[in-house]
Amino acid sequence: MQMPDPSAAILSRKSSVVRRLQGVLDDDSVIHEENELRAYECDALTAYKCPPLAAVLPRTTEEVAAVLAICHEEGVPVVPRGAGTSLAGGSLPSADSVILGVARMNEVIETSYDDRFIRVQTGRTNLSVTGAVEEDGFFYAPDPSSQLACAIAGNIAMNSGGAHCLKYGVTTNNLLGVTLVQMDGTVVEIGGAHMDAGGLDLLGLVCGSEGQLGVVTEATLRILPKPEGARPVLIGFSSNEVAGQCVSDIIKAGVLPVAIEFMDRPCIRATEAFAGAGYPDCEALLIVEVEGSDAEIDEQLGVIGQIARGHDPVEIRESQSAEESARIWLGRKSAFGAMGQINDYMCLDGTIPVTELPKVLGRIRELSDQYGLDVANVFHAGDGNMHPLILFNANEEGQLEKCEAMGADILRLCVEVGGCLTGEHGVGIEKRDLMETQFAPDDLEAQMRVKDVFDPKWLLNPAKVFPLSVTEPRRAIAAE
Amino acid sequence: MQMPDPSAAILSRKSSVVRRLQGVLDDDSVIHEENELRAYECDALTAYKCPPLAAVLPRTTEEVAAVLAICHEEGVPVVPRGAGTSLAGGSLPSADSVILGVARMNEVIETSYDDRFIRVQTGRTNLSVTGAVEEDGFFYAPDPSSQLACAIAGNIAMNSGGAHCLKYGVTTNNLLGVTLVQMDGTVVEIGGAHMDAGGLDLLGLVCGSEGQLGVVTEATLRILPKPEGARPVLIGFSSNEVAGQCVSDIIKAGVLPVAIEFMDRPCIRATEAFAGAGYPDCEALLIVEVEGSDAEIDEQLGVIGQIARGHDPVEIRESQSAEESARIWLGRKSAFGAMGQINDYMCLDGTIPVTELPKVLGRIRELSDQYGLDVANVFHAGDGNMHPLILFNANEEGQLEKCEAMGADILRLCVEVGGCLTGEHGVGIEKRDLMETQFAPDDLEAQMRVKDVFDPKWLLNPAKVFPLSVTEPRRAIAAE
Repeated sequence: MQMPDPSAAILSRKSSVVRRLQGVLDDDSVIHEENELRAYECDALTAYKCPPLAAVLPRTTEEVAAVLAICHEEGVPVVPRGAGTSLAGGSLPSADSVILGVARMNEVIETSYDDRFIRVQTGRTNLSVTGAVEEDGFFYAPDPSSQLACAIAGNIAMNSGGAHCLKYGVTTNNLLGVTLVQMDGTVVEIGGAHMDAGGLDLLGLVCGSEGQLGVVTEATLRILPKPEGARPVLIGFSSNEVAGQCVSDIIKAGVLPVAIEFMDRPCIRATEAFAGAGYPDCEALLIVEVEGSDAEIDEQLGVIGQIARGHDPVEIRESQSAEESARIWLGRKSAFGAMGQINDYMCLDGTIPVTELPKVLGRIRELSDQYGLDVANVFHAGDGNMHPLILFNANEEGQLEKCEAMGADILRLCVEVGGCLTGEHGVGIEKRDLMETQFAPDDLEAQMRVKDVFDPKWLLNPAKVFPLSVTEPRRAIAAE
Repeated sequence: MQMPDPSAAILSRKSSVVRRLQGVLDDDSVIHEENELRAYECDALTAYKCPPLAAVLPRTTEEVAAVLAICHEEGVPVVPRGAGTSLAGGSLPSADSVILGVARMNEVIETSYDDRFIRVQTGRTNLSVTGAVEEDGFFYAPDPSSQLACAIAGNIAMNSGGAHCLKYGVTTNNLLGVTLVQMDGTVVEIGGAHMDAGGLDLLGLVCGSEGQLGVVTEATLRILPKPEGARPVLIGFSSNEVAGQCVSDIIKAGVLPVAIEFMDRPCIRATEAFAGAGYPDCEALLIVEVEGSDAEIDEQLGVIGQIARGHDPVEIRESQSAEESARIWLGRKSAFGAMGQINDYMCLDGTIPVTELPKVLGRIRELSDQYGLDVANVFHAGDGNMHPLILFNANEEGQLEKCEAMGADILRLCVEVGGCLTGEHGVGIEKRDLMETQFAPDDLEAQMRVKDVFDPKWLLNPAKVFPLSVTEPRRAIAAE
């Protein structure tokens, strides 16, 4: 992955930049020793690594504003970082950048059950948002597999989803307001606990903007009352394509499960070994979950079972208890980890129309043969958000490059069938150079002109989202 | 309402501008005779009127692009217009502007039931989108009261809602993609039938941007399968405040009706006289609708009835037939029209946290006494989107001004209790000068810098959304 050369001028000013940062933060909030900076050299896309110039861990919006104002004056790039769980390299540093980590900003600021929102600092982890309200019968809906670790800041940056987003929507559907610190240190309030605001909808713009427009320090999130009950059913099939066809038919029928998750044999096997979830032995597995009262659950599962039986399933098994349901979900959520124990992998994130699932799964199998790299599939099938894992050996020369080329082919295929490059992981550096596959020059130009407004010097999260071929000329002009 | 002076230079060039427009459109698509321009002098906020320089009615995206390129070169302001149903003066012309009406652009371009979308030209009316798919069992969810007339273009511009948006969300939750013609005539594609796209979310930004960023000529809309069944229940109360408390309690309880509509006595009376909906005789009425199978409907209405009975209702009456349900909704949807038959009124659109309903309804009553102007209330109570109608006599000197002052007080009250100026009608000219109540200078500045990007000369839909005090200096600089 090509990265721009770091600025020698900035590298030479490291000690004076660090001193200025120490002037506005506690000493232990400014990390500058080489060995300590190792912790920030990559995120969950570990194939790419680069230690930053420094890292800061502010505690308040005011401290974030002070850090950004300094970096803005000094012309130092800033890479915002939540929990570092990005699978797209969304918080990969450059050598001349300051990592701005929000990990210490994890307070709950306000909770209202009557008006159904919670306001938190954005370093708070996804699961601990639900943790703060679940005793009172509420939850926060978006549930990325990394929810134990990932921060709301990153969820907002990537517009994260999760298994249950088929029913509840992704982050943008559950985000009510943010405090955004702009690159020059000014603070703006966008949205709020109310439903809509006049003027331009900067909230939708900021959500999913991958740290390109500013740093989100506080967020107001919609919380929902927990459903009466929920029950997953496991449905095993004899091939990926048949399972894909079943997903398409369920969606067409108009039943709306909370989640339809897909796993193929390599993933099932790895997950069974890792988590003992009790999955059936089959080529492809769907986990379909529905919610409601017992009667509602029975009715919905009846319809789903009828559709599934039309596809000659290997097995249909409803969960019999809360414990079994928890085990089924623990398996699904640990699938990436389980694969990681036995293989290096690259996780893709293309999204396609659900009707294209059987065709695209077939084409991925052909690409797998062509490149000689195995693929495991585990993904949110209900909304067409695919996560093919390309398996490779990181220690073998040339395998990463081969894997990148195959990944690019799969993502181009997603765009070709009417889908797009990313569902919930974001573009980051991973899909940066593929953006021209999806967007015409005028489309990208419109996006970059918005970026110009919020970050005229192009200091925020450099080398992400937009292809270097179009950003580097712009950065050069901005730096003049 | 203060408007900037029209440009004498533009007015003097009218005939040459019209000739250039005639060069790219059919003759009958360029309206320039004074008597014909009367049809475009106002929208549904009829208190303000001004005939435009000219009006054009293009048929394609290419024609829209050609018109905008000419106006851009000539420095002529452009006011996009859907069906002219804006209650906020969103398409009020200035004397030196060209009205760009999309009324002739009403084709269905593509429909996919499998992937659940429809792509239409944006002049198509809201109801005829559902009309194109209902025989096949689908519908388009947002349902403004004006749905028979209003265009998708205006729905997108204002991020319109409707009675059933409590469950299905407003336009932004049902919009998948747009074709946007920018002021300089370039065309960009934003979003699409897929779930998400990489890069900056310009779709969320464009939705609700009130014609400030460009002209949306085509839209991809989410369509949904029709629910199995639906049933409204009428619940009458002895006061507005008690009805408001009941709404808040229903929402708190975690049942999610499709709609919770509120009407007070003046609206009930006018609507009964106009539409004979069979509403009970009471101070305040809720129409609560739930969806699902008969069993699901019974269960939900059971919970709602129990909550309502805790508030000492005058009457609880479930609809007994499809005909009765249709009559109940026809009444609600004609409430504005019914009020218009007996009174001049100004319709407000503030949104508040649902828990504040009883308090705000009480304060509106006090303001009504203070100003000596009656208020009728009819609104989407479930999501806190209020529509107080201030009744006045347009022919009596000073009444409009008094009405404006009272409206401003009510909207300030909405912001004060944690709400906002608009739920679904947009800011337009109506709430333009109140934006500073809601937004700090830095917040407005962030929005206007985005406007700068899309429309550097500030030609699109002038004098709307942002206060003149902040836009006029900017427009002057842009014109230099």
